[in-house]
Amino acid sequence: MNDSKALSFLETTFRAIYPQDFDCRQQAEARLAQLAPPQETLGDLLELAVDLAGMTRSLTPSVARKQVVVMVGDHGVAAEGGLQGTPEETRQMVHNLLRGGAVVNVLARRAGAEVVVVDVGAREDFNELARQGTLITKKIGRGTVNMVHGPAMTRTHAVMAVEAGVEVANMLADTVDVFVAGEMGCASATAATAIAAVFTGRQVGELAGGGSGISEALVEHRMSTVEKALTRNSPNGKDGLDVLAKVGGLEIGALAGLILGAAAKRKPVVVDGFAATAGAMIAWSLEPFVRDYLICSHGSAEPGHLALLEKLRLRPLLDLNLRQGGGSGALLALPLVEAAVALLTEVAISAETGAASAA
Amino acid sequence: MNDSKALSFLETTFRAIYPQDFDCRQQAEARLAQLAPPQETLGDLLELAVDLAGMTRSLTPSVARKQVVVMVGDHGVAAEGGLQGTPEETRQMVHNLLRGGAVVNVLARRAGAEVVVVDVGAREDFNELARQGTLITKKIGRGTVNMVHGPAMTRTHAVMAVEAGVEVANMLADTVDVFVAGEMGCASATAATAIAAVFTGRQVGELAGGGSGISEALVEHRMSTVEKALTRNSPNGKDGLDVLAKVGGLEIGALAGLILGAAAKRKPVVVDGFAATAGAMIAWSLEPFVRDYLICSHGSAEPGHLALLEKLRLRPLLDLNLRQGGGSGALLALPLVEAAVALLTEVAISAETGAASAA
Repeated sequence: MNDSKALSFLETTFRAIYPQDFDCRQQAEARLAQLAPPQETLGDLLELAVDLAGMTRSLTPSVARKQVVVMVGDHGVAAEGGLQGTPEETRQMVHNLLRGGAVVNVLARRAGAEVVVVDVGAREDFNELARQGTLITKKIGRGTVNMVHGPAMTRTHAVMAVEAGVEVANMLADTVDVFVAGEMGCASATAATAIAAVFTGRQVGELAGGGSGISEALVEHRMSTVEKALTRNSPNGKDGLDVLAKVGGLEIGALAGLILGAAAKRKPVVVDGFAATAGAMIAWSLEPFVRDYLICSHGSAEPGHLALLEKLRLRPLLDLNLRQGGGSGALLALPLVEAAVALLTEVAISAETGAASAA
Repeated sequence: MNDSKALSFLETTFRAIYPQDFDCRQQAEARLAQLAPPQETLGDLLELAVDLAGMTRSLTPSVARKQVVVMVGDHGVAAEGGLQGTPEETRQMVHNLLRGGAVVNVLARRAGAEVVVVDVGAREDFNELARQGTLITKKIGRGTVNMVHGPAMTRTHAVMAVEAGVEVANMLADTVDVFVAGEMGCASATAATAIAAVFTGRQVGELAGGGSGISEALVEHRMSTVEKALTRNSPNGKDGLDVLAKVGGLEIGALAGLILGAAAKRKPVVVDGFAATAGAMIAWSLEPFVRDYLICSHGSAEPGHLALLEKLRLRPLLDLNLRQGGGSGALLALPLVEAAVALLTEVAISAETGAASAA
């Protein structure tokens, strides 16, 4: 598939993405205004309910069928060391995920969600594990190249990664109401930090830092790694595919594609963690209306993550000091999404019951 | 029931309240340390899981049976006006709650929780509605007296209100794993603001303010009302029952009792909103170990609420700009409580499976 044909497939996707429906938003707002007694409000939950009505063009949005998509890709920059994980750790985590023993699986069962693993760029193969869980293989490469020495991938591979994500969304959309976008792979936070630096214009030092369990030395290391990669590649912030190719990752591209594909089908996407938010940023750079379909599950302990959320003007539903990107954080937020819908669909309002006000 | 006999009943309750179990906390921590891969953490959710183990003295805490208790009481200070609600509004809201049509009912059904309404001090009666829902009547008075002109209630009634809450906890404890403490009643936020001023030592001006939907004039009005009540009554911050009697409310006393009773039975209590947190503050002033059993569901838009949470060193699970005290906020947080338990009980750790790490 060459770049021009690819762009035309993506272009079709972009053109299918509309803003949230204004009329449905207004009708939902009018309905919800009748729920709460004047002294009490349900705050952000009401906004979420209005968003869901706007995304789905429905006053009775369906959120029953929840699909976690874990995009897997390793990053060549992991070779720089630091606390970035290894391809072997990715393999072990995917193994655990496919056999249903991971935290994500437990939380998915609680939330009534399905989990699918998509291998777009892991260095290892998981074929022999696929019988234990649902694995989709759309392998574009065995990890990316170390971005400290040059672009993480070619522009062609960047396009293919985004396409792979759109294809996954298209394939699943008919049986899914809400997507949960997560990822797994070594050094994904390093790439996400580089993407955050490009799009927010902030200093790497402000973005690479801290959070629990990461030492000063490791933060310094990540900072210098990201700075080297940015200096070496000069990604063009006006061109999302250029940023993705030079300092992104295959799974980040696939996350961008998943989000674009879901938005084109008017499906909400609950975004989990730093790398998935970097994917959302890439998606937004390609088609800004995509933002109308994003639900941010949690603000992590990563300053780069918070900077991206601010840039995307997304307010996280949860603030639990999670450092999570594999889907767990989003699964914790799903009950809030369902509660928001219940406010719209399950609470009788005065006109329907004759009751004076709903407490 | 006179004061001395009453104190002895409460004293028995206080003496049954132990701190969280240290050994169970340590064992839970050790187990959870094996769950997350090094790059990711589950932040506050892990702390919550450790707390639940410590509260229940179990590495497999049960949280299946969830009981919302809505304490109802009206406040005489509502006569001062402002946006404080009226006894008639309380009646309508209780009516709606008992017939199952309120937001709380919808969210309770989603969360698999039962709802019981306890009338300790509403001005109106609800007897004719009781057949539609579960109403417990422990009516100590028809609302309190206007605290601007003198104590809201006698010390005897304050003791009786706390006792009523303990009795409800005792009655339900055998069939409940987790309590949700909420309230309903006009002007409860005014009383809660007064309690916050006494216990935090802050200026009323810092506590009475703002949040969404409340005008400057109404904030000023609440502020001056609370200041009048404090000046008139001089509540003694070293004596929780004195504070409760002078500037509290019957439902706030009952909430304090519910929390004390639950703690004595080693049951977690998820606290919803400003008035319930004021109840928790009263409970803490009577027996500080009670804090070990509190789970704070949400930080509201009320500065007085946040000041109380800080004083109690409780970090809210949700920050959704809710202005809610009827139980809805706590019901939204219950899935997090259940997820925390699932981390402890449903995720296999390496020693059990031979897998290298749980993702």
